[in-house]
Amino acid sequence: MRIGIAGLGNVGAAVMQLLQSNGDLLSVRTGKKFEITAVSARDKNKARNCMLGDIDWETDPSILAARADVDVVVEVIGGAEGIAHKTVETALKNGKHVVTANKALIAVHGVVLAQIAEKVGLQLSFEAAVCGAVPVLKTLREGLAANRISSLRGILNGTCNYILSRMEQGGVDFAAALAEAQQKGYAETNPRNDIDGIDSANKLAIMVAVAFGRAPDLDSIFVEGIAALTPNDLRDARMRGGCIKLLGTADLTPQGELIQRVQPVFVPHNEALARVSGVLNAVEITGDFAGKIIVQGQGAGGTATASAIVADLVDIARGHRDCAFGVAASAL
Amino acid sequence: MRIGIAGLGNVGAAVMQLLQSNGDLLSVRTGKKFEITAVSARDKNKARNCMLGDIDWETDPSILAARADVDVVVEVIGGAEGIAHKTVETALKNGKHVVTANKALIAVHGVVLAQIAEKVGLQLSFEAAVCGAVPVLKTLREGLAANRISSLRGILNGTCNYILSRMEQGGVDFAAALAEAQQKGYAETNPRNDIDGIDSANKLAIMVAVAFGRAPDLDSIFVEGIAALTPNDLRDARMRGGCIKLLGTADLTPQGELIQRVQPVFVPHNEALARVSGVLNAVEITGDFAGKIIVQGQGAGGTATASAIVADLVDIARGHRDCAFGVAASAL
Repeated sequence: MRIGIAGLGNVGAAVMQLLQSNGDLLSVRTGKKFEITAVSARDKNKARNCMLGDIDWETDPSILAARADVDVVVEVIGGAEGIAHKTVETALKNGKHVVTANKALIAVHGVVLAQIAEKVGLQLSFEAAVCGAVPVLKTLREGLAANRISSLRGILNGTCNYILSRMEQGGVDFAAALAEAQQKGYAETNPRNDIDGIDSANKLAIMVAVAFGRAPDLDSIFVEGIAALTPNDLRDARMRGGCIKLLGTADLTPQGELIQRVQPVFVPHNEALARVSGVLNAVEITGDFAGKIIVQGQGAGGTATASAIVADLVDIARGHRDCAFGVAASAL
Repeated sequence: MRIGIAGLGNVGAAVMQLLQSNGDLLSVRTGKKFEITAVSARDKNKARNCMLGDIDWETDPSILAARADVDVVVEVIGGAEGIAHKTVETALKNGKHVVTANKALIAVHGVVLAQIAEKVGLQLSFEAAVCGAVPVLKTLREGLAANRISSLRGILNGTCNYILSRMEQGGVDFAAALAEAQQKGYAETNPRNDIDGIDSANKLAIMVAVAFGRAPDLDSIFVEGIAALTPNDLRDARMRGGCIKLLGTADLTPQGELIQRVQPVFVPHNEALARVSGVLNAVEITGDFAGKIIVQGQGAGGTATASAIVADLVDIARGHRDCAFGVAASAL
């Protein structure tokens, strides 16, 4: 399997590293050799945590996406529009499978891209777009495929969960906890995407599509971030026997209405989600036969995201050709 | 997809119920119709929680396993030897895919059966054999397929976990907690298989095969049950800041030696597994890129097990043809 990687930030470099260090295992597990034929990023001379060796370099990722010696394009550029979108579209139109970690792209353009892929029997996969290393989309699409899902509740953003954990356990205020998160590399210089709940909303929209068979629809999600919370709010929550978590939730009413929300929620201490602290992510899924299933783990970071990206590559190497959202994109 | 169900206990009846009540969803998710053509059990006149309608009845499951109008055999008879083994073998030799919930069968004969299946491109699937509705084998084989696994730790037996939870929270002794579990239907009349750790060992052996690419080997697992524990042991554990859980663990040493154990273990309260109480199951998996991933949910019962069985049927309907243990059975 010949792989082209578009984007060589933390995640792209970790994918290279993983393919290099676990290539033997991947061959045993799939019977295929995983080979990186080309990579693409703006600056070839930037210091990176990976060996480029004799891998071809493309400055333009959409040129990479059309190369004859690439079977699968890994898109880790990011952003819903522009170059990432063009790269994925070009790859699919040139007969390449696509694996992406780009939640904004999939939440906005996922259905149209999946239609292109499904029409010609290509795979579009994005496990890495939701909760990093945690195989939550696979759990929804496959592990719980027999179930009618009634509810999803997830801690979908590690940055916010870290900030809330610090405010609760350290008693520091929001600004101080955010500064700490930035210092540790958990929060970006411009943290709005995380703290305003936008990142969580993108992930929720994608999970909802797979769980309920409805197109991702960011506009129908009520979104409230965590910036207005005070240490007092968290202290009050503790006195009431719980804590406050930024949850992404989707609940199907008996009338078939889907209520989607990202907002700070009081979670009693006896619930599993209350004990998910720090940068971890966790999702609780309720199905009519399975009952409550919880998956938990590292939701971000280069290595965790690489784990999910390469899992998608393994599925492709094993010949899985699943609808991106679990049902035909034309039916969403 | 034409399905034959061998065994109509709790689990077989729940599979029928699931296929009947969620058949519409399964069609949307796979593009295939799931049809039960025949079932098999000893006594046709026993009261059961499912509608037989005009489904054919076979008294001998190995006749069912050879029927021309069956594409997939669901084996839910149980037991490592005898009729269950014969049914699965007959099905594979007659060109049928097999889905089974039979942990003892797979732990003992899984590799040979997988070799038969893989030689002719048939699927042998047994997600339901490990932790009921929790997709732990899928998580190992697919979700974490990019990782070198270093450790598994799991609460694999809900009966034992219930008994220990009751001894800890209720202060009752082992015999009383066991009697309670039996009264609630969590423990069987002869509870030795659960309380002596045998059930956990079967599940551990299967997980180890998928995680580490080694054949299931019950003899190399050190097994100790929970019958000798007293309320005092649990009180001591609590005073030391933790609790006692029956864990199945597998750890790879730096020298490549695999240490497999089922035994009561002290688990500090700050670990996620400490907070898994009652009949729930949970498994913590450590991979080199993913870090720690935890999956948790209902590990037993008809509906939960049916959820996993039908998930395997969905994979087959979607055309997944994976090695049963994640790598070729001949390589184990």
